Amino acid sequence: MLKTQTLLAGACALLVASAAQAESAAEAAVDFRQGVMNVYSWNVTAMRRMARGDAPFDLAAFQSHAKDLTAAAGLDVLKGFPEDSVTDESDARDEIWLNWGTFEERHAALKEQAAKLVEVAASGDQAAMKEQFGKTAGTCKGCHDDFKN
Amino acid sequence: MLKTQTLLAGACALLVASAAQAESAAEAAVDFRQGVMNVYSWNVTAMRRMARGDAPFDLAAFQSHAKDLTAAAGLDVLKGFPEDSVTDESDARDEIWLNWGTFEERHAALKEQAAKLVEVAASGDQAAMKEQFGKTAGTCKGCHDDFKN
Repeated sequence: MLKTQTLLAGACALLVASAAQAESAAEAAVDFRQGVMNVYSWNVTAMRRMARGDAPFDLAAFQSHAKDLTAAAGLDVLKGFPEDSVTDESDARDEIWLNWGTFEERHAALKEQAAKLVEVAASGDQAAMKEQFGKTAGTCKGCHDDFKN
Repeated sequence: MLKTQTLLAGACALLVASAAQAESAAEAAVDFRQGVMNVYSWNVTAMRRMARGDAPFDLAAFQSHAKDLTAAAGLDVLKGFPEDSVTDESDARDEIWLNWGTFEERHAALKEQAAKLVEVAASGDQAAMKEQFGKTAGTCKGCHDDFKN
């Protein structure tokens, strides 16, 4: 009887430890993906301010932000959305996992448009940069509309 | 007199708006740099688990994490540390701004060691990867010891 109790206690301890680890893994995933989104946002916001005339247009800064947005878009952010990673801190909708293929396509669209923005920014043509910036930022909005609370 | 009061009220409104904008800019900077740190952490933690044997060694995953750490190290994170960006949410120490040159060197060291980790990971030599991972993670610790609360 004592042995059974000991075994049960051990099994419970393992279960609790396992649940804590799972929670921690989900939290780490949320921290990572939100970190990536913050990097997107930092760069998009800076370019938006220039594109709208809310800040002086600084070509070198715009090019740097386009480069960094592309680098961030190249990060494997999809790994930050494991299936068990719905937490109170997250605005991710279940639709992400129900429509995973679409979610992947949205990420690919951001990568593609951000890479084009780097190309266009190299030309220094402000009108073209603003147009391509709009397309790039549009991929953020499109994804948020469908997949973010 | 009424005109003076109106002018004063207007000046106050501008001051308040300006303070709010400054706070918001500092918060945005903190969100950005903490986002970058979260991306570092996500990749370093995954590689550390493999290096320590806490997770099965997966060469492709290790290589991907080394690549993403290098991409994140290449982001212009120093722009996320403007001088007025000390907030309650931040663990950044004043030493960052008092020793800015050293802080820049630490960031350069991370970039250099992470890039070497990508090279070593391409070889697939696990012992070499673990050694270079230690050097890379050491640049995180060295910087945190001096510059993070």
